Amino acid sequence: MARVALDLLGGDGAPEVVADAAVTLLSEDVDIDLVLGGPPELAAELVTERGLDPVNVTVLPAFDVVPMHAHPLEALRQDVAREVPRISVMVAALAVSSGAVDAWVSVGHTGASVTAAVLACGKVPGMARPALAVVLPAIEGPVVLVDAGAFLDASPEILVSHAIAGWSYARTLGVEAPRVGLLNIGHEPGKGDDLRSLAFGELSTRLPALGIDFVGNIEGSDVADGLRAQVVVTDGFTGNVLLKGIEGTVAWAAQRIGGAYGDLGPARAVVREVATGDFAGGMLLGVNGVTVVGHGSGTAHEVRACVRLASRAADRGIIHATQNLFASLIADGRSPMTTGVSP
Amino acid sequence: MARVALDLLGGDGAPEVVADAAVTLLSEDVDIDLVLGGPPELAAELVTERGLDPVNVTVLPAFDVVPMHAHPLEALRQDVAREVPRISVMVAALAVSSGAVDAWVSVGHTGASVTAAVLACGKVPGMARPALAVVLPAIEGPVVLVDAGAFLDASPEILVSHAIAGWSYARTLGVEAPRVGLLNIGHEPGKGDDLRSLAFGELSTRLPALGIDFVGNIEGSDVADGLRAQVVVTDGFTGNVLLKGIEGTVAWAAQRIGGAYGDLGPARAVVREVATGDFAGGMLLGVNGVTVVGHGSGTAHEVRACVRLASRAADRGIIHATQNLFASLIADGRSPMTTGVSP
Repeated sequence: MARVALDLLGGDGAPEVVADAAVTLLSEDVDIDLVLGGPPELAAELVTERGLDPVNVTVLPAFDVVPMHAHPLEALRQDVAREVPRISVMVAALAVSSGAVDAWVSVGHTGASVTAAVLACGKVPGMARPALAVVLPAIEGPVVLVDAGAFLDASPEILVSHAIAGWSYARTLGVEAPRVGLLNIGHEPGKGDDLRSLAFGELSTRLPALGIDFVGNIEGSDVADGLRAQVVVTDGFTGNVLLKGIEGTVAWAAQRIGGAYGDLGPARAVVREVATGDFAGGMLLGVNGVTVVGHGSGTAHEVRACVRLASRAADRGIIHATQNLFASLIADGRSPMTTGVSP
Repeated sequence: MARVALDLLGGDGAPEVVADAAVTLLSEDVDIDLVLGGPPELAAELVTERGLDPVNVTVLPAFDVVPMHAHPLEALRQDVAREVPRISVMVAALAVSSGAVDAWVSVGHTGASVTAAVLACGKVPGMARPALAVVLPAIEGPVVLVDAGAFLDASPEILVSHAIAGWSYARTLGVEAPRVGLLNIGHEPGKGDDLRSLAFGELSTRLPALGIDFVGNIEGSDVADGLRAQVVVTDGFTGNVLLKGIEGTVAWAAQRIGGAYGDLGPARAVVREVATGDFAGGMLLGVNGVTVVGHGSGTAHEVRACVRLASRAADRGIIHATQNLFASLIADGRSPMTTGVSP
């Protein structure tokens, strides 16, 4: 049974929406051992209001969020240096790092969550930089988009690193031999800006040497069908714009297509089903602890889905899979960070 | 009645798919005076096969396409230097430049079409660089996305230029006071990479001085609803990925949502309606001639929609609107290219 810490203080609707999700999880998801990260008195009050006895709720005491205009890295560095850290994302991430819980979830500020995870759990050796992976429910099966917005810029080595971590993640999702594609503006080799041209070369050389099928460039339209590739590699700026574009388009389509049937019900049910599947949250790949980052504006259903995603990822051993893969690459001198060493 | 030249040789299904579109246009769109750009004998053969008398079809003689592995700029520069150019996009673009037709359309290689338009028609003085504008049928009305892929990189000045041209285009589409947003990964000022931070500053200063409402950063999810902004400004790489991502998601949604109703018919009708609306093609803003670039993989219905878009744009005087706006900015010393001059 996975123990998952949920940040009570993150997200647009916190703490109410998070508390709604927590109470449902505590009542119905008997396979998850939920722990709340937040002020114990507030947590007790919120669960009591929702009909639960606070005696049955475990709380990781945390009292602060990263202040609105503060730089997350500075604020969290100061917090982790305290004898007892107080910021909820830091407290939750440290609980994973110490082994007190198996995974943690926040629907608060992405930058703060990524930073807390890196500070508390550390980066996976050999991986260039952590990246957010989101699972899109494509027509042909799950598609992993990396990076969905952990960091904005990228280098060819970072994109190789995303590819390897995304491939490993897709395998833990049950895709046997995931094909990797580079998100670009056309299929032909040589398309795109300098980053894409250089990355195309690196991916073409390095991935096949690791037994990973690189299918070359793919376009935005290939992402939703999942036919060409099950792992889509890009920088965090492009990935975030695309992800949110897809979300917006799904909402548009539900209204427009549902309207064509004269009944929005089934269309809305599809949107809800998608929003509360694996798609609910981003999995932070490349840190030594299961970290799920959800939408700040998510509903209680979506927050619950994030916790379930975190729980499944812990059960599936996503972290060990990534760690082992990069460790074997380092042992072979094939880590994406060892640029210039031929595979 | 707008005269529109259609490139017979561009697109994945050329010349057959283009000929299908042409015959429908010639038979049914009596408000468009269609001219075909291609080999006269081939054109005659194709229309005859489709039941039309070639005597009633006007052809701009053209015989070549940009060779597969050639650099479009080089190939088209050589072609325009000939006594009689032979490449179909060049011939069609020159026909606009000379006034022989009012607009031209190609569903061939985007780079070749953009280059031909610039070489034949010239850039609009004061606009930093041409950009492709696509009209998205958002929930709240049309949304203009600029740049959808004419050029990959951008600078703050180029994004200001996109904003002004997109605003002018949205007005010709009937949006009275279009609001402009900068595509980014969050709404707060200061979000995004260096390009977005710098562009935010430039747009914040320059657009209000021109009486254009700049709403700040918008996200991918805002594009499909059209609530925050009716003009979405971005670089061509991001714009192209987003546009294709939206297209793929619409196809995904039709299948998934239509499936939930147990009948794909109405869902497919919505997709068809969208694909054959203003959304069908990209309008090249910033050149002195109406140029529409469509999908290489478009159906005959979509090719026809591109021609109708071009015809409407010519009727609406899109080029003059853009030219006049930039001319007045130059006269006032407020062109986006005059960096450093305070408005």
